[in-house]
Amino acid sequence: MYYESIDKFKEECGIFGIFSNKEMDVASITYYGLYALQHRGQESAGIVVSNGKDIICHKDVGLVSDVFSENILMNMKGFSAIGHVRYSTAGLNTRTNAQPLLGKYKLGSMAIAHNGNLVNADVIRELLEDGGVIFQTSIDSEVILNLIARGAGKGIERAVADAIQAVKGSYAIVILTEDKLIGVRDPNGIRPLCIGKIGESYILCSESCALDAVGAEFIRDVKPGEIVIIDKDGIRSIDFAEKIKPATCAFEYIYFARPDSTIDGINVYLARERSGEMLYRECPADADIVIGVPDSGIAAASGYSMASGIPYGIGLIKNKYVGRTFISPSQELRERAVSVKLNALRVNVKGKRVVLIDDSIVRGTTSRRLVEILRRAGAAEVHFRAASPVVKYPCYFGIDTPHRRELIGSKLDVESIRKEIGADSLGYLGIEGLLKSLGENRDFCLGCFNGIYPVSAPIEMDKLHLERK
Amino acid sequence: MYYESIDKFKEECGIFGIFSNKEMDVASITYYGLYALQHRGQESAGIVVSNGKDIICHKDVGLVSDVFSENILMNMKGFSAIGHVRYSTAGLNTRTNAQPLLGKYKLGSMAIAHNGNLVNADVIRELLEDGGVIFQTSIDSEVILNLIARGAGKGIERAVADAIQAVKGSYAIVILTEDKLIGVRDPNGIRPLCIGKIGESYILCSESCALDAVGAEFIRDVKPGEIVIIDKDGIRSIDFAEKIKPATCAFEYIYFARPDSTIDGINVYLARERSGEMLYRECPADADIVIGVPDSGIAAASGYSMASGIPYGIGLIKNKYVGRTFISPSQELRERAVSVKLNALRVNVKGKRVVLIDDSIVRGTTSRRLVEILRRAGAAEVHFRAASPVVKYPCYFGIDTPHRRELIGSKLDVESIRKEIGADSLGYLGIEGLLKSLGENRDFCLGCFNGIYPVSAPIEMDKLHLERK
Amino acid sequence: MYYESIDKFKEECGIFGIFSNKEMDVASITYYGLYALQHRGQESAGIVVSNGKDIICHKDVGLVSDVFSENILMNMKGFSAIGHVRYSTAGLNTRTNAQPLLGKYKLGSMAIAHNGNLVNADVIRELLEDGGVIFQTSIDSEVILNLIARGAGKGIERAVADAIQAVKGSYAIVILTEDKLIGVRDPNGIRPLCIGKIGESYILCSESCALDAVGAEFIRDVKPGEIVIIDKDGIRSIDFAEKIKPATCAFEYIYFARPDSTIDGINVYLARERSGEMLYRECPADADIVIGVPDSGIAAASGYSMASGIPYGIGLIKNKYVGRTFISPSQELRERAVSVKLNALRVNVKGKRVVLIDDSIVRGTTSRRLVEILRRAGAAEVHFRAASPVVKYPCYFGIDTPHRRELIGSKLDVESIRKEIGADSLGYLGIEGLLKSLGENRDFCLGCFNGIYPVSAPIEMDKLHLERK
Amino acid sequence: MYYESIDKFKEECGIFGIFSNKEMDVASITYYGLYALQHRGQESAGIVVSNGKDIICHKDVGLVSDVFSENILMNMKGFSAIGHVRYSTAGLNTRTNAQPLLGKYKLGSMAIAHNGNLVNADVIRELLEDGGVIFQTSIDSEVILNLIARGAGKGIERAVADAIQAVKGSYAIVILTEDKLIGVRDPNGIRPLCIGKIGESYILCSESCALDAVGAEFIRDVKPGEIVIIDKDGIRSIDFAEKIKPATCAFEYIYFARPDSTIDGINVYLARERSGEMLYRECPADADIVIGVPDSGIAAASGYSMASGIPYGIGLIKNKYVGRTFISPSQELRERAVSVKLNALRVNVKGKRVVLIDDSIVRGTTSRRLVEILRRAGAAEVHFRAASPVVKYPCYFGIDTPHRRELIGSKLDVESIRKEIGADSLGYLGIEGLLKSLGENRDFCLGCFNGIYPVSAPIEMDKLHLERK
Repeated sequence: MYYESIDKFKEECGIFGIFSNKEMDVASITYYGLYALQHRGQESAGIVVSNGKDIICHKDVGLVSDVFSENILMNMKGFSAIGHVRYSTAGLNTRTNAQPLLGKYKLGSMAIAHNGNLVNADVIRELLEDGGVIFQTSIDSEVILNLIARGAGKGIERAVADAIQAVKGSYAIVILTEDKLIGVRDPNGIRPLCIGKIGESYILCSESCALDAVGAEFIRDVKPGEIVIIDKDGIRSIDFAEKIKPATCAFEYIYFARPDSTIDGINVYLARERSGEMLYRECPADADIVIGVPDSGIAAASGYSMASGIPYGIGLIKNKYVGRTFISPSQELRERAVSVKLNALRVNVKGKRVVLIDDSIVRGTTSRRLVEILRRAGAAEVHFRAASPVVKYPCYFGIDTPHRRELIGSKLDVESIRKEIGADSLGYLGIEGLLKSLGENRDFCLGCFNGIYPVSAPIEMDKLHLERK
Repeated sequence: MYYESIDKFKEECGIFGIFSNKEMDVASITYYGLYALQHRGQESAGIVVSNGKDIICHKDVGLVSDVFSENILMNMKGFSAIGHVRYSTAGLNTRTNAQPLLGKYKLGSMAIAHNGNLVNADVIRELLEDGGVIFQTSIDSEVILNLIARGAGKGIERAVADAIQAVKGSYAIVILTEDKLIGVRDPNGIRPLCIGKIGESYILCSESCALDAVGAEFIRDVKPGEIVIIDKDGIRSIDFAEKIKPATCAFEYIYFARPDSTIDGINVYLARERSGEMLYRECPADADIVIGVPDSGIAAASGYSMASGIPYGIGLIKNKYVGRTFISPSQELRERAVSVKLNALRVNVKGKRVVLIDDSIVRGTTSRRLVEILRRAGAAEVHFRAASPVVKYPCYFGIDTPHRRELIGSKLDVESIRKEIGADSLGYLGIEGLLKSLGENRDFCLGCFNGIYPVSAPIEMDKLHLERK
Repeated sequence: MYYESIDKFKEECGIFGIFSNKEMDVASITYYGLYALQHRGQESAGIVVSNGKDIICHKDVGLVSDVFSENILMNMKGFSAIGHVRYSTAGLNTRTNAQPLLGKYKLGSMAIAHNGNLVNADVIRELLEDGGVIFQTSIDSEVILNLIARGAGKGIERAVADAIQAVKGSYAIVILTEDKLIGVRDPNGIRPLCIGKIGESYILCSESCALDAVGAEFIRDVKPGEIVIIDKDGIRSIDFAEKIKPATCAFEYIYFARPDSTIDGINVYLARERSGEMLYRECPADADIVIGVPDSGIAAASGYSMASGIPYGIGLIKNKYVGRTFISPSQELRERAVSVKLNALRVNVKGKRVVLIDDSIVRGTTSRRLVEILRRAGAAEVHFRAASPVVKYPCYFGIDTPHRRELIGSKLDVESIRKEIGADSLGYLGIEGLLKSLGENRDFCLGCFNGIYPVSAPIEMDKLHLERK
Repeated sequence: MYYESIDKFKEECGIFGIFSNKEMDVASITYYGLYALQHRGQESAGIVVSNGKDIICHKDVGLVSDVFSENILMNMKGFSAIGHVRYSTAGLNTRTNAQPLLGKYKLGSMAIAHNGNLVNADVIRELLEDGGVIFQTSIDSEVILNLIARGAGKGIERAVADAIQAVKGSYAIVILTEDKLIGVRDPNGIRPLCIGKIGESYILCSESCALDAVGAEFIRDVKPGEIVIIDKDGIRSIDFAEKIKPATCAFEYIYFARPDSTIDGINVYLARERSGEMLYRECPADADIVIGVPDSGIAAASGYSMASGIPYGIGLIKNKYVGRTFISPSQELRERAVSVKLNALRVNVKGKRVVLIDDSIVRGTTSRRLVEILRRAGAAEVHFRAASPVVKYPCYFGIDTPHRRELIGSKLDVESIRKEIGADSLGYLGIEGLLKSLGENRDFCLGCFNGIYPVSAPIEMDKLHLERK
């Protein structure tokens, strides 16, 4: 897998939708939009286009650039589209589980793309099966599709609003019918979703960087608990939920989102830079150079440098061609090939006391490797700093976290972790510091740090719970 | 496409199922069974295996040998399986429409493979959609799957029996659940289905040649209107329909089935040979040699030769490598490349009066080409004989027939057809002669010859009727 | 591999060339020509086209229909072309060894396609290497390419004539330069090569069936020891060798060539039919039915039936979809899946005394299987007849024969072979009978039957002798 | 293509070789080595392994990770290997032109991998063709292979030394025979080549970063005009050329090489950082932030910031998933999708006076686009600085440069370029400044800046000159 994903939390999905009144090249726009959201999921990609009568779908396992060719896009004519990129664990039949999901129901065709996780999908699914429903996949979004089809008699908008009432968890959703694009964000706003405009066409997407990528203007974030309906009559909105405390996922800012995105009014890069400043205040170090782990630790390293006055420098060079099919070294070569993916820039670290900043520490295995690479390159001291609090708990809201027993922060105290990764000192940003770097005026989901979740989470469950045993 | 399919009726499917009490290599047996049934469908192939807990599916576009590799089969362990080969028109998303269809429902998982066509699928589908059901494909069998899921509360056997009551048309079906293999044949027995035994394991399949291929013993045909249930307790049977006149498709004997199969007690090769004898009696010719169009006209040619005393000979050589991806000659080369697929054996036809036997004439385009090839090779006279009656009507029961306007027998009388194909004389087997060659003691569906169908057929419908416009 | 190749000799190659004065679709004509010659080699295919300035090549592993697409052919514009189909043993880097071979030399570009085997390639190659030549492949034809390049100063025609003097063995060769098509046949004429005409364009090809396939007229066979040069000035001929006894490979008539081809004045089908007649006279049988092994034993079976008066019938049905990627049954299934490829037509053989005709017996393994299939289907007696003499010796002239120890005729006498294959009686056509069936007036290479070869053969060598150890 | 390659010079190749006395996993080590050199060529990759008897080759079009799988590497056992990554223009038959080149000659097998360009390859090739040599590719290295084969009688070492005398231009070469690894660097040392050691095994490779990647120790650079021979007796060296002025390509430091490599004693990152410092001294700017174009302008931007005191910041975010198969936007979308590959980090540039540092300006098209992206994001001023001199001349020594008419620095003066790219000011590093940043004590090839080349270059020639017209 891509370097970053080896020892990181994994975002599960990115979504994109566009509705235009004229027949423009919505498939290509969605393609570029998904390209910009590729960091949110590298396992499969899909686009569904509506031309007002038919809904055409193409999806497969692979990166956006693998799944789509010029030829395929040219054959996807229409005026509205949705798309999806997905991360998913190996072992599942990933082609079947690629999104968007598509179905034919009473009112025509309907496609759905979902980012998030429904914590009560099992229960609802059982209820539907009791009524004779057949499921094709183990994706929880298929539950929503069926709930909407059930209520089709009430019209699609009402059917969506009712369906949403039945589910619990995190969800940013785009739905495409022959003549409508509908967006939904869960009442806590755990997963991001924003609205953009390109000419007279509206766009819904996970992050604002996708709007930049297609030359669209940012309008606003979809509010927690809001349904947005876009059709030829324009855009309108339904608030389907009573106001409750919003709780955007803090990890979007720490790691998932792209630095050039702004989510719920907070720019990701600035939040990371501020987290580096806070980190210095909480965990200073006496050192000669501050370096960041590429790419996710760079912004915080810059902030740490600014706050501390210790010069910022490049200390690790990432091989930009290390991709999906990288062959893991055999036992014999493992020790030797340690620098294939990341190599130290010896001239910058040799003989120096180094502060090494990473966005977070999950399993700790990569951290140990990085410390070793720097020491081999001659670093005199390595002071490891994590620009987020200790990760102790799993996530139930769309992030693929390792089992608790694999979270090093769940098993060991900070000093033990320091020993494990071999650093001279180790510091984590505190929860307070994190909140300050995010701006204080808002609530966030901090479940993975403090074990307190915005929605009642079931007991620890396997993400494969919908696969029949 | 394969040579034969260019100007022939197309069988839509072949099905195979096996239930074993021990874990034997059911996937491989199904693979060989489908191999033997490949002539019934070359567009897609699929196998579903149950190990008692999970149901594993692999299907894709292509021949059985393209879709399955040793590796894939090795990973399909279980004790029961069903498989399907399918013919289907280009333009549809054939991967989605490949069978078996698989679904998860109240009682677990269920897979279905269907040969035939439901004439009331549209109506039932609409009823189900009104109840909120979502469909994934445009295959009519998905209707049956949903009907069964609806009735799951009554138990699988009863649910199948009830579901069957709702549908009308032709169907030979095999259904696989975690612990049962179920076979169903429509009340008219339009499509074939037979039972075999291999050790203690039972097999259900479209034609007896598939039993030979896997070394199984033929037990009996499934009766029209019979449900056969096979599980660890053995085999048992439900007659779900009042006795009505059986009406096996006559074209199974004329063209579709393999000559080494025996269907409802009638051996296909012998039926064809007898049709050649009848054909001579009805349409004699004064000639030097009788030749058959390979491969489907060979048996009738042999019968014609025996009845007439005119020597049988090989007059046409088929290129056995002409396969699916054969590139059609450009306009410039069309006239030249006429013999790429079939070449005349000049030494056998030059200067001779030739009787050329084909099993049937559909569009007439191939017939004309064959006459031309023989004339170019120096045949003195070409007397064309079709070993079946004039095809005038479309089929609604699982055969892909051209539109009526493309059936040459629907537009022209015999003398005009003779002129069109350029033969010196032309003769068709009459309906009486056909029935005699089939053995008289049974009724057959002769709809494509006389326009009289065993089940009330809707007005001429496109086979794509389930695709949303 | 294809059914026939399992227990048969393998022809190594088929070649085709066309020279036109105007820019016509020579790539497509070559494609159809190779299609018609596909039986001569199924492992790789290639076409080289010249437009007068450039020579474009496309070749790969696979059938003609796998290797070429409409798109590829469209991009191969020119006025002359050569093509090649090749059989080759697994394990070699078959893509590299695909033909035609292409090289750039002093006078421009040159491509060569070869059918046959040079028995002195090793020696010549060593001489060339001593002079500093580098070889890219282990194909013996690369020796010829280099010999021609060496003599390029003398002009291409003289260079070809001189190069040919240096090599010994069997060869039918087509050579393409920017402005010439050259054909060469070895002094014994072991491998076939004939000339055809299509409009003003000339064709050279291995068998006349390829001329029929592209609508060309047969002109004559290339004579043994003849070089044919075709360019914009027409066709001319050089006799490069003193007259010696011609020795066309007898197995071309027995098995390799297509029945609709005529080679050196003898029609292949008729030769086979006559061999069946001779076979009856030499090895009569008292039986009820004569059946042929499809497809290669059919003609001889017909001849046997005519000579004996015993009715000819179809007794074995070949599965026409058994292709290259057929998965071999596991040990468990081997006994069961015996009839996947060939099934007995039970109604024709049950209770009957059967004469089973095959063109030849090589290893004997298939023969035993066929006898078993017929017995399982109820045959009362099985009298096996081979329409060629006992195969006792390997071939050194372009045929892939098993090692002598695998030739059942080399190890056992006829009675022992009969026991081995389980037949009630066994008869082979004698060498005299074979010659009579071929017409007596000509000499043939009978090396595999009598161990006497037209060119001095080296001691038994591995066909991989050019691969470095 | 990869982002950087759109408007940059292209390095043509990277090479790697290893010789071990025991059978270790040399194929995997070469694989990781090529991975680290992937930036030197993304079009094709190849590895050749010797086990002492056989030489096995695998090469194909694609990235190292596409071309090799675990399975392929596992089947490449041996004790020595060479590998190659190659950049090459589209339109050529890239599979044929992939390296290493392999040939069989008098002494056995030999493979060669070459980085550089022979300016007299045409002439030598013609001489060889006059002697009857056939060429398979249009790669100039095939000339060297043939020269060596010619002299094989003198032994391989002498043959290499003699062959090298015949060629002129730039070359870093690794040659593999059954029992030797030979490295050669041209007398000017234009292309880099260094020696490393891993245990008792020796490595030759283009850049030292490949030694880090496989855990090897850097020994020294191969000297200009040196032949290095490695075999079971160890390493030895031949100086084949009189001492002349070394002239390492300056662009290796400016752009091609990885920052973590050290070439001829100069660390690439430090050279780039110093070039930024020099650049500030020569072309200061009054600004609020210094940003670098990722990834190649980052080091110089850091130097510029340090020298100027203007804060360094991140201003452009690169989409790390934009890869080879990125679909170019249609005309309609071109203006819109301008930020798919690189997006401005608005919060860092909005309202600010920005210094934008790129390593070089070639065509100027990307420069204009970058200025536009920054202006769209609200930059108040954009001061463009190139950390290398004006590129005015093509390169003849292994770099793929555009035609002179496409080099913006060849057509326009600096002020006109400024207008063309839309910057508020524009500055280039001077040649003197470049030499200072490289350390002054050595000569470099500066041909693309000043038109003075170390080896007499022929008149402007197309890189396809070896393809026959």
